[in-house]
Amino acid sequence: MVELTGILLLKQSPREARSSLQAREGQKERAPWDEAGPGTPSPGRAQPSGDYQHFLKPRFPVSNARSSALAKSSLTSKMDAGLFKASLAVNCRNRREPLALINLKKKNEETGEEELASRLDHCKAKATRHIFLIRHSQYNLDGRADKDRTLTPLGREQAELTGHRLASFGLKFDQIIHSSMTRATETTEIISKHLPGVKKISTDLLREGAPIEPDPPVSHWKPEAVQYYEDGARIEAAFRNFIHRADVKQEEDSYEIFVCHANVIRYIVCRALQFPPEGWLRMSLNNGSITHLVIRPNGRVALRTLGDTGFMPPDKITRT
Amino acid sequence: MVELTGILLLKQSPREARSSLQAREGQKERAPWDEAGPGTPSPGRAQPSGDYQHFLKPRFPVSNARSSALAKSSLTSKMDAGLFKASLAVNCRNRREPLALINLKKKNEETGEEELASRLDHCKAKATRHIFLIRHSQYNLDGRADKDRTLTPLGREQAELTGHRLASFGLKFDQIIHSSMTRATETTEIISKHLPGVKKISTDLLREGAPIEPDPPVSHWKPEAVQYYEDGARIEAAFRNFIHRADVKQEEDSYEIFVCHANVIRYIVCRALQFPPEGWLRMSLNNGSITHLVIRPNGRVALRTLGDTGFMPPDKITRT
Repeated sequence: MVELTGILLLKQSPREARSSLQAREGQKERAPWDEAGPGTPSPGRAQPSGDYQHFLKPRFPVSNARSSALAKSSLTSKMDAGLFKASLAVNCRNRREPLALINLKKKNEETGEEELASRLDHCKAKATRHIFLIRHSQYNLDGRADKDRTLTPLGREQAELTGHRLASFGLKFDQIIHSSMTRATETTEIISKHLPGVKKISTDLLREGAPIEPDPPVSHWKPEAVQYYEDGARIEAAFRNFIHRADVKQEEDSYEIFVCHANVIRYIVCRALQFPPEGWLRMSLNNGSITHLVIRPNGRVALRTLGDTGFMPPDKITRT
Repeated sequence: MVELTGILLLKQSPREARSSLQAREGQKERAPWDEAGPGTPSPGRAQPSGDYQHFLKPRFPVSNARSSALAKSSLTSKMDAGLFKASLAVNCRNRREPLALINLKKKNEETGEEELASRLDHCKAKATRHIFLIRHSQYNLDGRADKDRTLTPLGREQAELTGHRLASFGLKFDQIIHSSMTRATETTEIISKHLPGVKKISTDLLREGAPIEPDPPVSHWKPEAVQYYEDGARIEAAFRNFIHRADVKQEEDSYEIFVCHANVIRYIVCRALQFPPEGWLRMSLNNGSITHLVIRPNGRVALRTLGDTGFMPPDKITRT
């Protein structure tokens, strides 16, 4: 039985799927930022809102030629060709569907349909990814530049507590990826003392910024449009690069730590759960807190905990 | 300066606000469950999706006559009458706007505009409410009826840890409201030993159930449509009754504990943050976990932590 996750989740009839796809294609020319006028920030989100879709980041490039080949294949005679094509066209453009990784044209001419299921198996994720998003600890807000914004003594205590908590899980962590900003790097250094042997990778993608204009806005923080424009694309790129199903070659569940910043984590959580990303500022994260996301092989995402600092004594908890 | 929160948050031009209001009024006859056919569950949600609104549950009934009086008042000459009326009409129907609590007709004839601000002050919340949503601890899943589904020994340990954690905050808790189901009642009994003198109130509104069909669905849990129909309305009622701004008479911040169930808590969090409620099953809550919501006087809601069990040793954490 071929599992076509994108189709099984479509709640519309084939006709509605086709027209909503056309409507979305039309809407691509009228993104919200276009309506608001030139110069408005574009966070570069590709995912249409309102339709939950399991997502995968495949490792192979996919051309749009496959979608037309598919429409002619014998497989589609077993289900509505329009529905199938609509779903696959969207997912092929976003390179999200395991079926998009198989050369169906070759299959049609040579092997026949029965092998499709086993070939699809070779392209599907098998393992679960556990993502631990850690907000850096308390830091010196008065520092003039990033290199001056080092952790405070309380921040260093918080990082010790977080590192101790992570170690107490008894998990085999695969890696710690951290923002290249000073406070995240320092927090990582302290945490990694509790997790010896776990490799550390620094990235600029996870640096703090303004992901997307929040709704509702706050009066005390109003970034320039150019900040949303630049940071938004970068933080969306962080989400797409790091938050995806396990690679098809991954056999065992993985446990990865990401040490970064509150805005980035909250935006990632909204995107991972497919909630409106402008809602990111409706959440608040303590320093040194742990946020745990689980990504199943079929693309389902669960938020196990958000902003957990229960392992810290209450008088050590801060939010700045 | 009159603070008209509903208006300040509207991102549309007056013409768009008017037409979107008319569209919403038209849509009221075509609720999602109507489209799907008879017998489909109606969760009874009044709030339109997609527009973030600060919300209030006022204590006074409001008639629609006020909205037409308002359209004629001199106040509206200072702002677009259509925008004002559109916002207020929606919020008056939902009884959500402080301005709806004032008899403007009386104001127009007698006192003039200057007194409006001070009279509005008397109708606005002043204090913050802190809501701690606790999921009951581990219980005996094999019990045949609710009275047999008592806490396991581990569940009792978890409740002790949760009670200890809540007590360690050093807060003056106002009350503990708990679901009338056995496992929630038992969890409350244990927690309240750590919080002597805090009154306990039992309610059927917070009993576990099926709030709304989740998206994406799960294969291992498929309630009957009638469960969504009945439970959905009740759990929505729990949200509306318990999650609102502080009463206008409340002077100091309050700290309230709600001991209930995973589905109820997750649904409440989605509704409080104005995320799509069908996304409630994208979150997962440990037994005995603490979820902390903050409701500001102006109606802004923040999620401080979700499913926090950092105060439990990892080997005591369960999710069943």
